[in-house]
Amino acid sequence: MREIKGGVCIPSGFRAAGLHCGIKEKRPDLALVYSVVPAVVSGMFTTNKVKAAPVQLSIRKIRNHLGQAIIANSGNANACTGNRGFEDARKMTRMVAEELGIEEKYVLTASTGIIGQPLPIKAMEKGIRQICRKLSVEGGHQAAEAIMTTDKIVKEVAVETDIPRRGRGKVKIGGMIKGAGMISPNLATMLCFITTDACVTPDALDEALREAVNESFNQISIDGDMSTNDTVIVLANGKAGNAKIRTWRKKKKLRVKDENFIHFNEALKFVCTTLAKITVKDGEGVNKLVRITVKGACFLKDARRVARAIAQSLLVKTALAGASPNWGRIMVALGSVHGRINPSKVNVYFDGELVVKEGIGTEADETKLRKILKKDEINITVDLNDGHYQTEFWGCDLTERYVKINKRYF
Amino acid sequence: MREIKGGVCIPSGFRAAGLHCGIKEKRPDLALVYSVVPAVVSGMFTTNKVKAAPVQLSIRKIRNHLGQAIIANSGNANACTGNRGFEDARKMTRMVAEELGIEEKYVLTASTGIIGQPLPIKAMEKGIRQICRKLSVEGGHQAAEAIMTTDKIVKEVAVETDIPRRGRGKVKIGGMIKGAGMISPNLATMLCFITTDACVTPDALDEALREAVNESFNQISIDGDMSTNDTVIVLANGKAGNAKIRTWRKKKKLRVKDENFIHFNEALKFVCTTLAKITVKDGEGVNKLVRITVKGACFLKDARRVARAIAQSLLVKTALAGASPNWGRIMVALGSVHGRINPSKVNVYFDGELVVKEGIGTEADETKLRKILKKDEINITVDLNDGHYQTEFWGCDLTERYVKINKRYF
Repeated sequence: MREIKGGVCIPSGFRAAGLHCGIKEKRPDLALVYSVVPAVVSGMFTTNKVKAAPVQLSIRKIRNHLGQAIIANSGNANACTGNRGFEDARKMTRMVAEELGIEEKYVLTASTGIIGQPLPIKAMEKGIRQICRKLSVEGGHQAAEAIMTTDKIVKEVAVETDIPRRGRGKVKIGGMIKGAGMISPNLATMLCFITTDACVTPDALDEALREAVNESFNQISIDGDMSTNDTVIVLANGKAGNAKIRTWRKKKKLRVKDENFIHFNEALKFVCTTLAKITVKDGEGVNKLVRITVKGACFLKDARRVARAIAQSLLVKTALAGASPNWGRIMVALGSVHGRINPSKVNVYFDGELVVKEGIGTEADETKLRKILKKDEINITVDLNDGHYQTEFWGCDLTERYVKINKRYF
Repeated sequence: MREIKGGVCIPSGFRAAGLHCGIKEKRPDLALVYSVVPAVVSGMFTTNKVKAAPVQLSIRKIRNHLGQAIIANSGNANACTGNRGFEDARKMTRMVAEELGIEEKYVLTASTGIIGQPLPIKAMEKGIRQICRKLSVEGGHQAAEAIMTTDKIVKEVAVETDIPRRGRGKVKIGGMIKGAGMISPNLATMLCFITTDACVTPDALDEALREAVNESFNQISIDGDMSTNDTVIVLANGKAGNAKIRTWRKKKKLRVKDENFIHFNEALKFVCTTLAKITVKDGEGVNKLVRITVKGACFLKDARRVARAIAQSLLVKTALAGASPNWGRIMVALGSVHGRINPSKVNVYFDGELVVKEGIGTEADETKLRKILKKDEINITVDLNDGHYQTEFWGCDLTERYVKINKRYF
C-alpha cells in the first residue's frame, strides 16, 4: 500500500466539482462527487437521535446498496428543519439526477453548517445545475474545499494498494473530509466521502467500512459533541477490474477471510485513520494532537472508555494546552470510568517517560516532561496492567481560541 | 424554615477553627470542626475509583455512625500517595484525638489540593496541635476560609427549622463548602461539612443526606471531571433536644414518613442546594449560572441524563459564554443521550421564551433571546413531552478564563 497525492478523483471513473452557490458569503459551499457507473455504496451515519434531513434521506437511499453521486453543501446543516428540510434534501438529489441523467435513488446527499435554518433552496438551484456540468477529474480538490466550514485546511488522502489474488493489479482509494467542531466518537462530526475503483461486494464493503470507522472516526474527540449530520459514504465503482473482493472465500471446504479483503480493509483503514487524525489536528482552536494508548485492559470496551474519558476531560485538555505535566488529572479521568480498573495497578507514560507507577507518582524530571508536552504531538500511554486489550484514541488540547471561536453565533 | 447568617457553628454544641499550618504559602490551610459530644454522622464520598487517602480513611471510620471532629486541609489532596498518604491521614486524626482527648475513631479527615504530592506532615504537626486549642463558636468562618483553594468567596449557609412533632422547638443546620472539583483547577475536589444539632437516627440521617446530595451536588457540573477527594460529611449531635427524627413512624398501625423527617430533610436539601449553587457560581472562569430544567421525561434517569448532557456540552457552554441563542447545540446535546427521547416532541425554552417547538426552531426574536442570554442567571427548560418526570441541574458557561486558569500547573 502506498499513499499518493490527491483525493476522491484518484480512483478510476470518478469525477467531482465544487463551487459557490450562495449559502455562505463568498466561499465554495456546494460539492458533487460522481461515479461514471453506478457503484456499490456503504455508509455510516450519526448515532445522534436528532438526525438532519439529508442524513435521514441518505440512510433510506443507501439501502439499495447502489449509488452514483453525492451532492453536499456546507454552511447549512438542514437539521431540525422538519418536513420542509426533508423536501429540500430530496429536491437537491432530484435536480442532480435530472441534470446528470441518472436515477434519483442513486443520488445521496449530505449537509453541514448551522442547525435550524431552512436551506436557501431557491438560490441553490442555479448552483446545482451548474455543478453538474463542472464535473471533472481535477475537481476533487474543489469539492473538498466546498465542504469546509471552520476547517483551516483542505483534507484529502489517497492510497493505492495491490489486490494480489488472481494478479489483477491495483486498487485505489481516495477520500475527503470536513471536520473542525462537534467532533466526538460515534461518528465524529463530519462529512467524509470515500471513493474507490475496487470491485467489491456490498457485504464486504459494509464490513470493511464498519471496521475502519470503529478504529478511526469513532476513536477521535475534539469537544465531545456528537453532531446531527455525521456522514461517511464510500462508493466503490469496480473500475479497477480486480477480482471481486468478498468478505469470505472457500479454501479447502473451509470459510476463510479473503486475502483481497484483508488488503482492501487495511487500505481503507489507513484512509479513514489518516483523515481522522488530520481532522483532529485541524480542529477548532487545536494546537496539539494527543494520541492516547490504553493497554492492559481486561475488556476492549474498558480500554475505549478510559481513552475517551482522558481525551474528553477538560482538565486534561487544558493541562495539555499549558504543557503542564499534571498526571493527577489523567488519574482523575480514568478513575471516573465504569469498568474494571484497579488504580493501584495503573502505569502512565508521557512519550515513554514513566510518570505514574502502580497508581503513585514517580519522581520524573519535570523539565523533561514539560519539554515532551510542548511538542505538537504527544503520546500518552496508560497501562491498566489487567489484561491484554488495547486501543488508540486521538484527542487534542483545549485552548482559549476554541472558546473564542465557539462563543460566536453562526 | 428560615435562612440565618453563619455556618457550621450555628447549631448548638459545635466549635470550629482555621489557621495557616504551612502547606500553602500564606493563606489558611487547616480547618477543624468539633462537636462537644459524639454526633451521629453520615457521609458521601467521590465515586471515582481513584480515592484519596483521607477519603479511604473516612469511609472506613464513618461505618461507626458516630463522629466528633473533622480535620481538613487545603493545598494538598493527599491523593495517589500510596501507603505513606494513608499513614499521614491517620496521623492527622490521631493527633487531633490525642489533643482533644476524644476517641481516634471519632475523628474524620478530608483533604483538597494538588494530587500526587506527599503531605508536609512534619510541618503540619505544630498547626494541628495549635488548632485544637483554638476551637471556638466564632471559628466557623475561619474554618470555611481554611478549606478554600481557588475559591473567591467563603461559602457558608445556615438555616433554622421547626420540628413540629411533640413541639420540641427548633433545629439548626449549618454548612460550609469549598469549590466544586470540576471548577477548581488541578484541585479536583469538593469538601462540604454540615453540622446540625438535630437529634436524628443514623438511618434517617443517611437517607436525608442521600436525598439532599442527589438533588444538589449530584446535579451540578462545570466540566464533568470527577474528583478523587469529594467529601460531604454531616454531623448531628442532638443538642437541640428535639424528639428523635426517624425515617418512618407508626400511625394507626401503618408505616408513614415521620413528619419531623420531612421537615429536617427539606432543610438539609436547602442547605445542600444553596451550597451547590454558590459553588458553581464561584467557579473558576465562570460568568454565568445556568439552571437546566428537563421535564416531561418518561424516566427520571433520562431527564437527568439530558440535563447533564446539555450542561456538559462544550458547545452549549461556549454559546452561553457568548450569549449566542444557538439552540441547535442544545438539540445536538440532548439527541446524543441514550434513553427515551423523541426529538420531534421536544420543546426548548430560554427563560420561558419558546425557541424550539416539536423539534423545529421557532421564529423567536433574536434580539430578545440575546438579552436573555446576557443575564447572570439563565433558565433553560427542555420539555421532552413524553412523561411526567422532571429534574433540575445547575451548570455554567465556559470562558477563555477557565482555559487560562487551568493551563497553569501548580
